[in-house]
Amino acid sequence: MNAEKISALTSWLTKQELSGAIITNYHSVAYLSGFESDPIERVLALVLLENSEPFLFGPALEVNSMKESGWRYAAFGYEDHENPWLKLTNHIRTLTNGKKFAIEADNLTVARLKLLQTAFPDGEFSIDITDQINQLRLIKTPDEIAHMKAAGRDADRAFEIGFNALESGISELAVAAELEYELKKAGVSSMSFETLVQFGAHAADPHGSTSTNTLNTGEMALFDLGTMTEGYASDATRTVAFGNVSNEAKKIHAITLEAQLTAQSQAKIGMTASELDAIARNIITKSGYGQYFNHRLGHGLGSSVHEFPSIMAGNDMILEEGMVFSIEPGIYVPGVAGVRIEDSGYMSKEGFIPYTHTTKELLQF
Amino acid sequence: MNAEKISALTSWLTKQELSGAIITNYHSVAYLSGFESDPIERVLALVLLENSEPFLFGPALEVNSMKESGWRYAAFGYEDHENPWLKLTNHIRTLTNGKKFAIEADNLTVARLKLLQTAFPDGEFSIDITDQINQLRLIKTPDEIAHMKAAGRDADRAFEIGFNALESGISELAVAAELEYELKKAGVSSMSFETLVQFGAHAADPHGSTSTNTLNTGEMALFDLGTMTEGYASDATRTVAFGNVSNEAKKIHAITLEAQLTAQSQAKIGMTASELDAIARNIITKSGYGQYFNHRLGHGLGSSVHEFPSIMAGNDMILEEGMVFSIEPGIYVPGVAGVRIEDSGYMSKEGFIPYTHTTKELLQF
Repeated sequence: MNAEKISALTSWLTKQELSGAIITNYHSVAYLSGFESDPIERVLALVLLENSEPFLFGPALEVNSMKESGWRYAAFGYEDHENPWLKLTNHIRTLTNGKKFAIEADNLTVARLKLLQTAFPDGEFSIDITDQINQLRLIKTPDEIAHMKAAGRDADRAFEIGFNALESGISELAVAAELEYELKKAGVSSMSFETLVQFGAHAADPHGSTSTNTLNTGEMALFDLGTMTEGYASDATRTVAFGNVSNEAKKIHAITLEAQLTAQSQAKIGMTASELDAIARNIITKSGYGQYFNHRLGHGLGSSVHEFPSIMAGNDMILEEGMVFSIEPGIYVPGVAGVRIEDSGYMSKEGFIPYTHTTKELLQF
Repeated sequence: MNAEKISALTSWLTKQELSGAIITNYHSVAYLSGFESDPIERVLALVLLENSEPFLFGPALEVNSMKESGWRYAAFGYEDHENPWLKLTNHIRTLTNGKKFAIEADNLTVARLKLLQTAFPDGEFSIDITDQINQLRLIKTPDEIAHMKAAGRDADRAFEIGFNALESGISELAVAAELEYELKKAGVSSMSFETLVQFGAHAADPHGSTSTNTLNTGEMALFDLGTMTEGYASDATRTVAFGNVSNEAKKIHAITLEAQLTAQSQAKIGMTASELDAIARNIITKSGYGQYFNHRLGHGLGSSVHEFPSIMAGNDMILEEGMVFSIEPGIYVPGVAGVRIEDSGYMSKEGFIPYTHTTKELLQF
């Protein structure tokens, strides 16, 4: 558990004259309590109280895991046939007479807010604690950065396995399977998202999924992957050549690489996210491929694979020391080829330090 | 796309005097439109209109996939730097003068509702369409049941691979890796949830995760797994013995099996979900292990792995022909062993027909 961050939030509660906070995003719960679990449609909450100790609340079958997770305070469960909101709010009432509670408005659904209000009719749930939590998550501690470096090493290992698996006629799914298999055998328990392997023109669909498409000589192969290591995510992309690829594919790769390396080397503390996006985007636009770079430059990551800061046009957030994000320009020409090159890394006084070190030059297999 | 279901919802809109519906749960979008994609933190919506054709709205980089997914109506995208809610509602305003729209209250977050209301200040978003969609999803068509049978065959294949991978000293993760690898190589693109393999006393934590624990002779091995096949999920659990297991482990297995088989054979159209849960629970309770069966008997599944009906105490929903759900009693004795046995299947006039056929008798490897 992260006592320092919990204490920062509790101070914020006092300042806001709130009685407590009901935190329901399981990534936030994991970040603050150390208890990692996706409750799917069940309810998992970390309750912070201004005048009392925090507690964890969730499915009865998870209470043992909560207690074994390093969480030092109380943990309570509800059975599937019980109303979790009633049980949760009744417990809160035994601990405080307060009525004003912060919620995570970007996680709590409209239906759940209604259930919460029904269970606690005199409660007020209009204050959002999301920004406070995001702010805490935004700046990584040296420990967090160390975990992410380890995740980057696992991602580099995954690229190596994946590249070695390339052979004529193999399917995208078989390559993804091969690298996940070798990683799992080595103890890397889960990927940070579904591994994306795309060959040839299929890679021009940047959020398409790994399929049964098979590899032909002369095609590019795009790998977008990451691991969860020590509770933190890696996320990186490489695009390599299988045999001799077309001049256009090589050109697209070279432009994407220039955009990625330039953004990476020019990223500086004090710059805005929008400015960093523009550095990469201008290079691609000047080369005539601007319309084919149809997503933001990057996204934050940490204990989850998508968090703040979002590196995109219009985001005036200032880049600060300890922020972690991806730099991932791409060019996707329908019917021709798709190239994306991505490193995630952290902002330091020396600039952007990537977590992954697999070469970004165009490798040929 | 599912024209019949869209038409049913549009009729409901007319009856409710609503101008339209903004559907944001990506499982609902996939179910109705045929376009399958998890937008993560981006916005994906299927908009149904009472007086106009429906349209899909989502990230610009997904628009091509939307058009290629079999969706026959319009598809629009937004760039990362645009306000999706403003773009979405501005488009709606070009198609209707109406102000009343249904939302999915169990999916839309409090923050998103606020953004929607800010973008469309004179709009009303107080009606929830969740129940109508759940009702459509609840009763599977013969086509959907055929897809789920295929998913069940893949799950049976997964058990076979997993059982064959058991050997002294192998880790839970390695066994999971082995079976996912073989499935992916055979073209099964994704599991319906993270494969759970647990050995010995670790299986007494029913929602713990697959770990680096290694297998010892005399331990039980629990496999809870499923595939996504043809867009539909399978979900099944088997617990097998590795070498000679203790008499208590055998006893727990026998009781769990009796509970599972009895519930499965007594499930009848017209019975409530609560009654079915009680059939299995009474058997386990009478045997003295009631406190160790700490979750509901089952859950619905279909295009997602957790949907209605929930088979649990207190749920008076009547079981109907075409409903699909799991029957999965379990006994988890901390420090001793955990056993769960699960088949998913569909309700027919003949009773409950399981999708998975791997034997549930105690296998010994």
